[in-house]
Amino acid sequence: MADQYAARRGRLRRLVKSAGAQSLLVTDFTNVSYLTGFSGDDSYLLVRPDGEWLLSDPRYTQQLRDECPEVALEIRDPGVSMMKSIEKVVGRRAIRLGIEAGSMSVALHETVASALPRAELVACHGLVEQLREIKDRHEIKALREAVRLAERAFEVIRSSLRGEQTELTVAHEIENQIRSFGGSGVSFPPIVAAGARAALPHASATSETIGRAGFVLIDWGATEPGGYKSDLTRVLVTGKISPKIERIYRVVLKAQQRAIAAIRPGVPASDVDAVARTTISKAGFGKYFGHGLGHGIGLDIHEGPRLGSSNKAVLRTGMVITVEPGIYLPGVGGVRIEDDVLLTRDGHEVLTSTAKEWDEAITLV
Amino acid sequence: MADQYAARRGRLRRLVKSAGAQSLLVTDFTNVSYLTGFSGDDSYLLVRPDGEWLLSDPRYTQQLRDECPEVALEIRDPGVSMMKSIEKVVGRRAIRLGIEAGSMSVALHETVASALPRAELVACHGLVEQLREIKDRHEIKALREAVRLAERAFEVIRSSLRGEQTELTVAHEIENQIRSFGGSGVSFPPIVAAGARAALPHASATSETIGRAGFVLIDWGATEPGGYKSDLTRVLVTGKISPKIERIYRVVLKAQQRAIAAIRPGVPASDVDAVARTTISKAGFGKYFGHGLGHGIGLDIHEGPRLGSSNKAVLRTGMVITVEPGIYLPGVGGVRIEDDVLLTRDGHEVLTSTAKEWDEAITLV
Repeated sequence: MADQYAARRGRLRRLVKSAGAQSLLVTDFTNVSYLTGFSGDDSYLLVRPDGEWLLSDPRYTQQLRDECPEVALEIRDPGVSMMKSIEKVVGRRAIRLGIEAGSMSVALHETVASALPRAELVACHGLVEQLREIKDRHEIKALREAVRLAERAFEVIRSSLRGEQTELTVAHEIENQIRSFGGSGVSFPPIVAAGARAALPHASATSETIGRAGFVLIDWGATEPGGYKSDLTRVLVTGKISPKIERIYRVVLKAQQRAIAAIRPGVPASDVDAVARTTISKAGFGKYFGHGLGHGIGLDIHEGPRLGSSNKAVLRTGMVITVEPGIYLPGVGGVRIEDDVLLTRDGHEVLTSTAKEWDEAITLV
Repeated sequence: MADQYAARRGRLRRLVKSAGAQSLLVTDFTNVSYLTGFSGDDSYLLVRPDGEWLLSDPRYTQQLRDECPEVALEIRDPGVSMMKSIEKVVGRRAIRLGIEAGSMSVALHETVASALPRAELVACHGLVEQLREIKDRHEIKALREAVRLAERAFEVIRSSLRGEQTELTVAHEIENQIRSFGGSGVSFPPIVAAGARAALPHASATSETIGRAGFVLIDWGATEPGGYKSDLTRVLVTGKISPKIERIYRVVLKAQQRAIAAIRPGVPASDVDAVARTTISKAGFGKYFGHGLGHGIGLDIHEGPRLGSSNKAVLRTGMVITVEPGIYLPGVGGVRIEDDVLLTRDGHEVLTSTAKEWDEAITLV
């Protein structure tokens, strides 16, 4: 694994140079983990042309030595501020020091600028995030595990579903099951939305019972022990439903399948979004699909690339994206179907395998 | 409740003026919740001298009307950016617009500055956070509930403790119990650290069994449905231990009790820290207490005020703080005892009541 982290830092070094900076101060803790393997927080990484320094405090000394033995450490004494460590490793020279503009706060920027009066701070946008869009084989393995954990948990939920369970009970049981299979937990608070509540794309689980409405939308995912996250959605038919729900289910499924079929390296993200959107629009539900088609997943549940009508960037081998069209009819209900898809050299591989055909959605309770 | 939110915004308006700004753009979602009662995210609040505008998108329209009917809404159409909403409500006048420097990213600052070329952006530091340090009666009620949830869960954990349970199993069971009593979940991933691992102040739970070592440190808390958080630590003696652990337990307990006794409005935070630190130092363990004495709790698990040797600010009525001295002996183990304390007009009230005397810590498994 150590080689892999060194390779990521090597690629980052080239991006830093292209961005017009000599070094980069990585202050986003997830980015620090991605670049070093360190699983703690409160630590920064300075990436210089000639090496890296990890800036941390004594609570983490042992863990840092275990997790990233190849990175030089700058451990400050208790009571000494992080800024003193930054001053020490950056030095007093006039350098162009890149900062992570997307996550560094205005206040931290002010503090760093005054601690390093001779440095010119260069606002860098999404350099590490750009690397993180393309998953290496270690990450793909972790994402497969995150999918496996989510799917095993879902099978237990589905096989034990009862109409008198509340949305909240089901949401909590998903987390329990993921943990019982060895995961860290859910990758976000699951959406468990019965009936008309499924028309709210961001419904949080409530104490409503799920049997009442005839169908339930479940949007969930797992975090594996290394921090990688999966993201799926299924709709289960739990009783008597209106023909309209079956109709939109079939449209969403067709839109999703067509969009997945269009995924391969070199295709603009917006084109894949358009495939799903056209299918839904032609069926007459265009205005009820009010969000983008999907997003990257990884150490964060929402990463690049975004799949939407305005993102013309092309998809590339190694990306892992969600494909999740939906139709939401206010007051009636909603259907969304979501899978996780890996971009392969010659096309794609769907990492998720939970059943999604209409007949398979029927789970009477 | 609506009155309460209006009162908070009124107090904020005076702080904004003192900070030299005419309006404040609140971009921290927790601060937006604190000021309005809105429980969703992705929404900003513009606080002007003459009123407020909540900037959001159609996913949240219904929820906003339910949760904060008295606040004016600016709901953008799908596909329209947040910046367009900001331009619309701020207007094209030359104003001094405060921003939240502690949480606004450098990139968002750049975007807002270019969307509002005639506005002067004033970096404001911790204005809403300063209000949040003093809890009103609604918040104190919620914090009492967060404490109750944490303590009920702990009693179940303690009464069902078995030596073959792993740290992770116990951590997960704490969350299950909190949820079964009606809480949203834990307030942070619980620390469950057996034996020598208890010497690491930030140990994450592992698959080690807890019976092996003779004692286990548990640092946990609950989040109640409104988002308020509690934070406690207890050490349980589960088997045969060295006299040294009993010795440091008694020193930490004495330090904690003395520090709590010193808490009243008008006392500098550093003085309370010093009471605990002196007790521990006199017992010969000064260098093994390497962190501050405590911190505020509320909607975030770490809020102001910080209790440490460098914070000379005085404690005030309505603050709710943790008091958590510890002694950590590398390779041997650690003890920390933590309670949540409310500053009252004439002193303090300890909100937590879980047993902590040495004899009460003994829970053989």
